[in-house]
Amino acid sequence: MSSHKPVVVVVDAQTPGNVGTIARAMKNFGLSDLKLVDPPPLDPGGEAYGFAGHAREDVLPNAEEVSFEDVVATYHTVGCTAITGEDSRRHRRFPYTTPAELADSLQTVDSRTAIVFGREGRGLYNEEIEQLDEICSIPASDDYPVLNLGQAATTVLYELRDLTVDETQLPDREHERAAEDDIERFYDYFGTFLDAQRYNDRKREKTQRLMRRLIGRAHPTGREIHTLLGALRRATEQLNHRQELLDQYDEPDRFGDETAGDGDTEQTGDDA
Amino acid sequence: MSSHKPVVVVVDAQTPGNVGTIARAMKNFGLSDLKLVDPPPLDPGGEAYGFAGHAREDVLPNAEEVSFEDVVATYHTVGCTAITGEDSRRHRRFPYTTPAELADSLQTVDSRTAIVFGREGRGLYNEEIEQLDEICSIPASDDYPVLNLGQAATTVLYELRDLTVDETQLPDREHERAAEDDIERFYDYFGTFLDAQRYNDRKREKTQRLMRRLIGRAHPTGREIHTLLGALRRATEQLNHRQELLDQYDEPDRFGDETAGDGDTEQTGDDA
Repeated sequence: MSSHKPVVVVVDAQTPGNVGTIARAMKNFGLSDLKLVDPPPLDPGGEAYGFAGHAREDVLPNAEEVSFEDVVATYHTVGCTAITGEDSRRHRRFPYTTPAELADSLQTVDSRTAIVFGREGRGLYNEEIEQLDEICSIPASDDYPVLNLGQAATTVLYELRDLTVDETQLPDREHERAAEDDIERFYDYFGTFLDAQRYNDRKREKTQRLMRRLIGRAHPTGREIHTLLGALRRATEQLNHRQELLDQYDEPDRFGDETAGDGDTEQTGDDA
Repeated sequence: MSSHKPVVVVVDAQTPGNVGTIARAMKNFGLSDLKLVDPPPLDPGGEAYGFAGHAREDVLPNAEEVSFEDVVATYHTVGCTAITGEDSRRHRRFPYTTPAELADSLQTVDSRTAIVFGREGRGLYNEEIEQLDEICSIPASDDYPVLNLGQAATTVLYELRDLTVDETQLPDREHERAAEDDIERFYDYFGTFLDAQRYNDRKREKTQRLMRRLIGRAHPTGREIHTLLGALRRATEQLNHRQELLDQYDEPDRFGDETAGDGDTEQTGDDA
């Protein structure tokens, strides 16, 4: 976590709604310091506050009006633009970083950084861009790469979350994968379950391996493994009981004894 | 690139503007197939079309109204929600994947996938969520993790871009780093430049190393290196000329000859 969280600067926004959307994204991703250059009127009953969600309580009312020159003089500045230069012959908008690269590079420096967004439609003007230190551009479809201002800011701030969000709402999953010995016990018991239904011997190993791969990549929780194990236990006991009943009443087993067949006619996937 | 691009499903959206925002994000990130469950009226003169940008031309007018049941029956479904379960005791909203993890996992399967977003405010209801195959949640600030519907969709679709965007607008940078021998020539010439100003001999090496590190991590373009080299050449020639003038007119050098001093009193950073 960098000691300085970036500030967000919006230059000459035309629609109050976008300023509200940006304020909301800032609060969603742990930022609070919003600077506005030539902002539109931000009426507390209007669209900016309507779009800001809970950021209407802090980020938006605390936004500070500043000059572009102040921003350039005070911060390491990153200008966001959908339109980059084509190559290094023109360096006003080249080279660029992507938001993910920006997040990586900011992680290694301790600087007061400003992420700068331009007006709707035309974005940051060339004469603004050339005063900024870095260019950041969101990779998007060549067919239509221009994001709406609020959506662009949301995307960039999302990518910076490792720098800015102290704690997310998401519960830790690291310890949520079931204990390995519980998972192993489940695999073993799955074999017992196959035996209880007199599963074909030659297919048994492949089917067990298939189960190991399937469960292995799903990273089961303890609860999932215990629930599955419980269901298999119950089924296995009833399968065994059925065999006892067949013996007791000398009933024929109309499902046959698959363990006797060769049974390798069925494909069991790429494990064959 | 997966052969099936995901479809986007919006369930019971309340505000047309959000549907338009989602349509725009879809077009920005290479998607076109929008399905709507119980949509609000989407008047071509209204907010949905106002927010859709160029997606007003295709994604939005081609959006198809469907039932939730159809979606569940037809697709591998991923439900997006800010609110996950706390742990594995309740598995309706647990385990979750993050958008980045979802992008990774979808890269390895060839399935018809639907990314499902719920209504504003309350999101997807429990009775909807439990019919979906996976849960996806955007890591955000614990203080305020609930993104606006349009912003959440933008973020998720941004993360899926490697699956969905055939070609971005960004020019290739791979061949843009200057040729290594040009960079080396620049480092060498920087030494000549230091000599021409009679730079202290003991500091010379450290300063050259510092320049190598600085330029090295900035990945200079060919144009940048050639421009810098040109400026150094011109300066060096003029520095040499100054020495000639001093000799010619027997002028004292009021900048002294730093090469004579011990000069190690100045710090040159962590290279000392």
